[in-house]
Amino acid sequence: MNYKEKSLLAHQQRNVLRITPNVKVENRDDLSTYYTPGIAAVSESIRDNADLIYNYTIKRNSVAVVSDGSAVLGLGNIGPEAALPVMEGKCLLFSKFANIDAYPICLKTQEVDEIVEIVRNIATSFGGINLEDISAPRCFEIEERLQDMGIPVMHDDQHGTAVVVLAGLINALKITGKQFGGVKVVILGAGAAGTAIAKMILAYSGNQTQIVIADSRGSLCDMRRDLNVAKSELQRITNNTICGELGQIIRGADVFIGVSAPNVLSAEMVKSMAKDPIVFAMANPIPEIDPDLAKQAGARVVATGRSDYPNQINNVLAFPGIFRGALDARAKQISREMLLAAAISLADQVQNPTVDNIVPSPLDLSVATRIAKVVAETAAKSS
Amino acid sequence: MNYKEKSLLAHQQRNVLRITPNVKVENRDDLSTYYTPGIAAVSESIRDNADLIYNYTIKRNSVAVVSDGSAVLGLGNIGPEAALPVMEGKCLLFSKFANIDAYPICLKTQEVDEIVEIVRNIATSFGGINLEDISAPRCFEIEERLQDMGIPVMHDDQHGTAVVVLAGLINALKITGKQFGGVKVVILGAGAAGTAIAKMILAYSGNQTQIVIADSRGSLCDMRRDLNVAKSELQRITNNTICGELGQIIRGADVFIGVSAPNVLSAEMVKSMAKDPIVFAMANPIPEIDPDLAKQAGARVVATGRSDYPNQINNVLAFPGIFRGALDARAKQISREMLLAAAISLADQVQNPTVDNIVPSPLDLSVATRIAKVVAETAAKSS
Repeated sequence: MNYKEKSLLAHQQRNVLRITPNVKVENRDDLSTYYTPGIAAVSESIRDNADLIYNYTIKRNSVAVVSDGSAVLGLGNIGPEAALPVMEGKCLLFSKFANIDAYPICLKTQEVDEIVEIVRNIATSFGGINLEDISAPRCFEIEERLQDMGIPVMHDDQHGTAVVVLAGLINALKITGKQFGGVKVVILGAGAAGTAIAKMILAYSGNQTQIVIADSRGSLCDMRRDLNVAKSELQRITNNTICGELGQIIRGADVFIGVSAPNVLSAEMVKSMAKDPIVFAMANPIPEIDPDLAKQAGARVVATGRSDYPNQINNVLAFPGIFRGALDARAKQISREMLLAAAISLADQVQNPTVDNIVPSPLDLSVATRIAKVVAETAAKSS
Repeated sequence: MNYKEKSLLAHQQRNVLRITPNVKVENRDDLSTYYTPGIAAVSESIRDNADLIYNYTIKRNSVAVVSDGSAVLGLGNIGPEAALPVMEGKCLLFSKFANIDAYPICLKTQEVDEIVEIVRNIATSFGGINLEDISAPRCFEIEERLQDMGIPVMHDDQHGTAVVVLAGLINALKITGKQFGGVKVVILGAGAAGTAIAKMILAYSGNQTQIVIADSRGSLCDMRRDLNVAKSELQRITNNTICGELGQIIRGADVFIGVSAPNVLSAEMVKSMAKDPIVFAMANPIPEIDPDLAKQAGARVVATGRSDYPNQINNVLAFPGIFRGALDARAKQISREMLLAAAISLADQVQNPTVDNIVPSPLDLSVATRIAKVVAETAAKSS
């Protein structure tokens, strides 16, 4: 069986998640403790001091994985029903890697105002909100408007991806002996992931990295008159005056980061890059360039989103530890500093980076624990 | 320790619920099966046939326990935070008694339109909706407006209670040798529970039972000019022309059903009832009359909501089995026929009813299974 057949069969056979009692309910005494009349004491305590909700309920350890199904995997706008299995998978990883109780919430609406209102309304029942697979530019506004709820809210397609890319890039540059301050980075894809990656690299490098970010129409440069608000801001913060298609802007670049479409990066383009080029080709499931072809064209370090090649850039390396740390510290937001701490920790967890080993394995259970620690410490410092 | 202390300690020590993997995630193969790339096949299947969401996801076995915290236990309008432990307890019982994956959703808003919209929007992720502890008359409209979603939606404070009361009453009348068609029933409390109890008894008896239902101002009779829409309809369907306070309307009644307030039924009132009076005093935690006092005053059968007296009328006897049956049959609604089938099954499960044994024990695990069977059968017949 291939993965698709395996996945269909596995999901048909059983739920991937279960919600189960964590206490015994065997006698009248137990019923009175976990339901009426005993439960009234817990409710009264929280009524009198709302903060005690963290002492007594699932809020202390839970995350809602919220999607509107508008930008699911490589499948696009497939709606809330078809998005549900993906969100379940995400919840599974939250549990497996961070011992977090996560439930998938797929919303029928794709209106920003409605999504914001619904999440605000259900947030009491959760300790954090992981926004997932919501298309750009709506995802930016939704995430931004939910930052005042007092619980961590993070759009993983943006920041989870950006954390892992930054970690990989830290180690790739180390291997090639280059500095963030001296390289030119071309990012292809100016949606959720591309935007967050650009901002993360700029934050890490103190705005010293030259970034040229492009969408399917070419680079976001000062001559473009067709940019929406989010893309205009990207152009502004990258301060980019280099206009052109990928074939033009890639020349002399040290780093290519693709979060775009299959097979859009040619061997010729890789050959036109600077010495020791770094290629992150992360389109899923088919990368921007075949990893072997990229190597043959001279790429020194190649990373993809795929599990069957070295250097898998996978969000699962980031989001479980980030939320674990945020919940442990009871952080009210996930700050840029927390994300940077996560990326630096992730990079440091590869003791001797090589061209085929720039990030830890997605199956390494210690990764999330170590990220959680630095994220919680960073949260504590800033609060 | 008393129940309150026990409950506080138990909830402080651990979550009562956990969301955990039901599959193993140990290697890259598992990651590819339960997350990318394999999961795409499941999403594509559901995208192409929305009904397959039931074949592949948690929707087939899940219920959201939704509350706005407006009428929680005997505590009143304590808000969503303080309501959360109660909803968790409910979810615990769903799992324990019906193997249903239930998550508590506590909403910040108490506006009917908003609650309806939010539940509609999150319903994709759940196979059923258990509305809980929402005050009357808003609960009636909310439940009514959510009936077209294609999944079972039930306000348990209404129908769960009514099913157990009807079951108990069937057996209590059997003991006293009376018929539904020949008795006068006084219901004190015209909110969610009282309303549903009245409608359930009328449905079971083919409108042959004489019901006088009262709120704190007296019976809902044709002279009342202060009734809201819901209470007016109650007056109409009970066709009641008997006006008066409890002390007046209770005279000659065969059955008293209290879902109201502590100690409002006096021994004198019980003495004024017909021969072999039946008293269901279900105010929580302090009943309308002390059960021993009711007995001394001549009540033949006494039931309460309390676990420390015989005949505990507890919703847990109904809602797990009702939802289990509805999910098993993939019912689009929970119909009156399904509720009646549940009540009749519950009554039948007491083989030889006695004055101290009119309903099964709330801890009897076979109850839900047997109710589920008849509920599913009834659903199948009507679909």
